[in-house]
Amino acid sequence: MEKTNIEVKWKNNMSFDAIVNGHVIPLDAEASVGGQDQGPRPKPLILVALAGCTGMDVVSILNKMRVELEDFKVDVSGELTDEHPKYFNKIHITYSFKGKDLPMDKLEKAINLSQERYCGVSAMLIKVAELTHEIVLM
Amino acid sequence: MEKTNIEVKWKNNMSFDAIVNGHVIPLDAEASVGGQDQGPRPKPLILVALAGCTGMDVVSILNKMRVELEDFKVDVSGELTDEHPKYFNKIHITYSFKGKDLPMDKLEKAINLSQERYCGVSAMLIKVAELTHEIVLM
Repeated sequence: MEKTNIEVKWKNNMSFDAIVNGHVIPLDAEASVGGQDQGPRPKPLILVALAGCTGMDVVSILNKMRVELEDFKVDVSGELTDEHPKYFNKIHITYSFKGKDLPMDKLEKAINLSQERYCGVSAMLIKVAELTHEIVLM
Repeated sequence: MEKTNIEVKWKNNMSFDAIVNGHVIPLDAEASVGGQDQGPRPKPLILVALAGCTGMDVVSILNKMRVELEDFKVDVSGELTDEHPKYFNKIHITYSFKGKDLPMDKLEKAINLSQERYCGVSAMLIKVAELTHEIVLM
């Protein structure tokens, strides 16, 4: 059984430092709730975990398929529930690719492999939220 | 209906930059899978989202209760499933407090309010994982 440990240390007011894999990520709230915006809000990091996880999968799979990318980004939009406590119950991922004569079938295959087989964050979030995605060519 | 948007841009190899609330968080894989460790792995950010969310709640609630903290941190340990794709199915939160004559009942009340009423990340993860917590006095 594999464990992952992270730590979040209070600095002052609503400001914290997270320590993850030896890297420090500042976290903070917005001014309206007493924060100073010295770092991102915590909740959107769920969407970052998803984008990073599937993004790394896709880059790695396309690399093995010898598909060369000039540029690539993953945008994630999460819809919050109306009721408190608010969480993301609809999540849309937009994969944007740039490159010469990109083979659409391989892009789709790489994304499907990530979503269905490799990405643990997708596997976790799909139990809670409706997950959809689209491909955009830049 | 409230939306949250984040973006994750590919830099090179397995290295990405996430943009969240205007802040940049580098993400990277470990060397064994072609990364250069220029930032944290994406999956543990789920645990950071949880720690930050409940940590901010607890600081804010204790502040309203006029409980003064000298120090505070939130450690989160996540157990991954044995099967691929691996995700966290057991999550343990350790709340560590330091202060003079801290009232244990108020610490417990603040944590329970966060876990049961305020923290959207807890509300989301409790649908997927077994969530437990403990209090430690430093």
